[in-house]
Amino acid sequence: MFLEKIKSPDDLKKINKQDYPALCGEIRRALVENVMKTGGHLASNLGVVELTLAYHLVFDCPKDKIVFDVGHQSYVHKMLTGRYEKFSTIRQMGGLSGFPKPSESEYDAFAAGHASTSVSAALGMARARDLLGEDYNVCAFLGDGALGGGMVYEALSDAGTSKTKLLVILNDNEMSIEKNVGGMSEYLSRLRTAKKYLHTKDSVNNLLSKMGKAGDVAKHAISTVKDAFKYSAIAGGVFENLGFTYIGIIDGHNIEMLTKVFERAKELDGPVLIHTFTKKGMGYESAETHPEEFHGVSRKATIITKNAISFSSASGEILKSLALQDEKIVALTAAMGAGCGLCDFAKKFPKRFFDVGIAEQHMVTTAAGMAAGGLKPVVAVYSTFLQRAYDQLIHDVCLQNLNVVFLVDRAGIVGEDGETHQGIFDLSYLSHMPNMKILAPTTYKELEQMMKYALYEANSPVAIRYPRGAISLDDSLPDFEIGKACVVNDGYDAAIFAVGRMNKIAKSAVKILKEKNISAAHINVRSVKPFDMALLEEYSKKCKLVFTLEDNLVNGGFGSYLAVNSNIRNFVNIGWGDEFIPHGKARELFEKYGLDGKGVAEKIENALNNL
Amino acid sequence: MFLEKIKSPDDLKKINKQDYPALCGEIRRALVENVMKTGGHLASNLGVVELTLAYHLVFDCPKDKIVFDVGHQSYVHKMLTGRYEKFSTIRQMGGLSGFPKPSESEYDAFAAGHASTSVSAALGMARARDLLGEDYNVCAFLGDGALGGGMVYEALSDAGTSKTKLLVILNDNEMSIEKNVGGMSEYLSRLRTAKKYLHTKDSVNNLLSKMGKAGDVAKHAISTVKDAFKYSAIAGGVFENLGFTYIGIIDGHNIEMLTKVFERAKELDGPVLIHTFTKKGMGYESAETHPEEFHGVSRKATIITKNAISFSSASGEILKSLALQDEKIVALTAAMGAGCGLCDFAKKFPKRFFDVGIAEQHMVTTAAGMAAGGLKPVVAVYSTFLQRAYDQLIHDVCLQNLNVVFLVDRAGIVGEDGETHQGIFDLSYLSHMPNMKILAPTTYKELEQMMKYALYEANSPVAIRYPRGAISLDDSLPDFEIGKACVVNDGYDAAIFAVGRMNKIAKSAVKILKEKNISAAHINVRSVKPFDMALLEEYSKKCKLVFTLEDNLVNGGFGSYLAVNSNIRNFVNIGWGDEFIPHGKARELFEKYGLDGKGVAEKIENALNNL
Repeated sequence: MFLEKIKSPDDLKKINKQDYPALCGEIRRALVENVMKTGGHLASNLGVVELTLAYHLVFDCPKDKIVFDVGHQSYVHKMLTGRYEKFSTIRQMGGLSGFPKPSESEYDAFAAGHASTSVSAALGMARARDLLGEDYNVCAFLGDGALGGGMVYEALSDAGTSKTKLLVILNDNEMSIEKNVGGMSEYLSRLRTAKKYLHTKDSVNNLLSKMGKAGDVAKHAISTVKDAFKYSAIAGGVFENLGFTYIGIIDGHNIEMLTKVFERAKELDGPVLIHTFTKKGMGYESAETHPEEFHGVSRKATIITKNAISFSSASGEILKSLALQDEKIVALTAAMGAGCGLCDFAKKFPKRFFDVGIAEQHMVTTAAGMAAGGLKPVVAVYSTFLQRAYDQLIHDVCLQNLNVVFLVDRAGIVGEDGETHQGIFDLSYLSHMPNMKILAPTTYKELEQMMKYALYEANSPVAIRYPRGAISLDDSLPDFEIGKACVVNDGYDAAIFAVGRMNKIAKSAVKILKEKNISAAHINVRSVKPFDMALLEEYSKKCKLVFTLEDNLVNGGFGSYLAVNSNIRNFVNIGWGDEFIPHGKARELFEKYGLDGKGVAEKIENALNNL
Repeated sequence: MFLEKIKSPDDLKKINKQDYPALCGEIRRALVENVMKTGGHLASNLGVVELTLAYHLVFDCPKDKIVFDVGHQSYVHKMLTGRYEKFSTIRQMGGLSGFPKPSESEYDAFAAGHASTSVSAALGMARARDLLGEDYNVCAFLGDGALGGGMVYEALSDAGTSKTKLLVILNDNEMSIEKNVGGMSEYLSRLRTAKKYLHTKDSVNNLLSKMGKAGDVAKHAISTVKDAFKYSAIAGGVFENLGFTYIGIIDGHNIEMLTKVFERAKELDGPVLIHTFTKKGMGYESAETHPEEFHGVSRKATIITKNAISFSSASGEILKSLALQDEKIVALTAAMGAGCGLCDFAKKFPKRFFDVGIAEQHMVTTAAGMAAGGLKPVVAVYSTFLQRAYDQLIHDVCLQNLNVVFLVDRAGIVGEDGETHQGIFDLSYLSHMPNMKILAPTTYKELEQMMKYALYEANSPVAIRYPRGAISLDDSLPDFEIGKACVVNDGYDAAIFAVGRMNKIAKSAVKILKEKNISAAHINVRSVKPFDMALLEEYSKKCKLVFTLEDNLVNGGFGSYLAVNSNIRNFVNIGWGDEFIPHGKARELFEKYGLDGKGVAEKIENALNNL
């Protein structure tokens, strides 16, 4: 077995060419075997086996820097850079991260997790190299999905005029997490259909021989159309117009051709974009046929038990049923339609469903435009990705008090995806936005009533935040009212005001405290903003201490909102501390950080003892 | 005089063609006369007189919707839509806003202030129109500077495949606030030089006759190169590749040609981009020769008195002097170099100065890349624009704890630019980011010491926030230490912990309180995060009440940070409430909202009385 012997890219370079196919086979088997167990990104990594191999054959990491975009495609890189032995621990608590992480390995030049950042980061490094008089290569490695995010154009535009030596590898597999959308995606698709691949040695040699040193990139770009070098005429259009030397399209499964192109690209000055085409799921039949199902493989059984329904599915189902009654309802998402439970909605109302690709800023502002135009837009988005539209929320939605409804999915700890994906910021960034209302359901009935409220009564932006995982089908709780919390359990020593998912934990803490003869009231907050100040004051008088409990940072979160907006002063805030929370199962993380029932009960007991 | 008679665009339509030049002259005189008094955007509005006129001649506002990008170019629109009489009140408290504002007029279809949002908003409206079966035109009106922001590409890409009828007017004047930069800007410049303007009737007729109904936009785009319609071959390259029908370049000062093109564009289906070229400052000699000086005309005398130096200039001066000693220091800005006091730095160190254009996301992440590559990047940015990189701050800077220094200029109330520009969010969005340190200087000496600390001791991201206006040159305060506040004045009834600019107001409040025999301590916070918890606890014991005073939202801000991170409970938080703060002079706003010395003293007295 070759893979076991590869402790660094140097070992890779010792392997004979004729053994590459065998090595690729080993990598693919290792990917499939492990990812099926651990969850993670299978199809995207199966697609970049040869590309990653070729990269490491030509470049000299860690001296040369590779900056992955998102990082869903970094598993093969991890295997080839000394982490094969630990690969079975990927995404497990204490194990390898599912994303590039400099603190994990010197081969990971820059952290990632969110899309469209790689060219910016790589350009920064390349400029640092030049100014410090150092000598190494910097490469941004991005999938075509990342081209959805406008930040890439900001970076390409800057890099294109910089003359800085920089390599961008665009791995085009026609998909990001879901099927790509938008003009850029169609443009890439036209490139693919309009032109023949470079799949013979001659065609590559021919291309490379025509490429001069790219000193005069601007001139090159403008003369492109008339140029003898017609190959890139339309092809490179967008990229060359921005100042890049464009090389493509290269078959991303042909190691010999890739190494040749990389060798040549190393010699070029200025910014170079290599456009490769790969097949997502390559070499694994199911993954190849249904790549969208295999994009993120999660161990579903551990998350949703049989007969349970997730918050995502529930919200999609409710939205669909509301949309049947109301033609003004439209749904928007940023490449998260399936993740947010919108597949049925999209099928039923294709003209009222807008997947804008990985473009959260545009999604939020275009939703604001829709609301201004008289529609009822509902934006379904993960908490961690809504961060990317912070300014648009303030500037385009809240400022005009537009009735846009945000279904903030994956709020709170998401688990295995780790620090880049934990949705523990949203209560902090949403609660200080004027006009924004924030609701947190725990049951199907609450979610449904909140969605109706948001669409028909709120007359303002509303964020409904809920976690990954199963929603309770309990319908015994009283009806939801805006600005009203719901007493689940009464008590007189302590009062726990719990947000969303933390109600389960509050319940468990109440039970533990009871065994210690501590009487704790449990209140389901429901309406984070506006908040039920009257009930808070009541319990502040009735109990010795009031506790806020939220699956969000304490800084700036629900507890902090309450602290500065109420007159009560006998409070203690419980939530996540001032640090990034790494990957692990949600349950494990709650336990480790003292936010499970036991930990919360202990905190409450200690606080009461310290009075 | 024509202008006085125009109460709505209908009145404009009654004016004879031969009188347009006279009307344009009137508009220009009104612009110059008023803006020289009120401050505001002169050159950009002088440039769009004919363009705005032509727009309103052809379209039927308010039924047809125009969405301005940023809105620096909306003054002429305001004059022509019933607001000429009030025009002298622009940017004054209670007067017209300097930006489009739907609550001000039904002719302002969507609010703006930040760049690159217009296409997203307009597309949203256009889709609303289609789904609701309505019939009106939607137009996004943007300057070339707004093309710096990636969000526009997200929107163009979505619009390009939407087939939605949408008009985008790109007003290219080769400048945004400062000289434009980047690949897109160079691309536009090549379009301008490579091609002749359409400046004769024949050339326009010729162009228009060749444009079919744009039903088959994608096909049109791909066949462009070979097409007889060679005019747009390179020209429309980027835009047509994204799916737009491109018309350009049109002389933006030729009303006859513009109306003809607009009339034709109205008939086209699908997304259409009209590329016009105008001269910034047209018709006003000084503004034309030095448009960058006239971009934002501020009544400097009222803001900075003679011999005073602004925070911006001070920071630029200090940065330059530190950079002379340290080659690793580089400066980045997003089209705010002059505003942030970096002109001298840029001249002295052109290779170490990076103006990325209006591209805040890229700016922050490429700074992170520079820090990862060993440089010491200093990002100079207005508070309100740093909002646009919220996710990049968390995901690319804080997560890796990279030593990027942020000079957060225009923090707190900025005044006349109003709600879209008030920098009252930064303490809220920065203070919950793990690893971020936040400092607030009041004097030159503090600023200098903080910048040195940030560059040489912090080993983490640091934000140094300061307001628009003059910096104190007092050097009598003790040296800055991280995590330490500075007692300005002792007292025993109340303790005021004041951040940055609010120290002046605290001083004044202390004085007023003293006259009422209330003894108030005054502490200059300096280090917002980490905060001097020991001193806070000391004063919490010593005084009856502790007050936090900040030029930021109370929600999520400094006071809220202190409330959830300390054990003190006898606190009251003073700052901006949960609402957007409109335009007006900073002084007027502080007074109106009870945040001047008098107002703060009253709040303190009342709180003490209520004990």
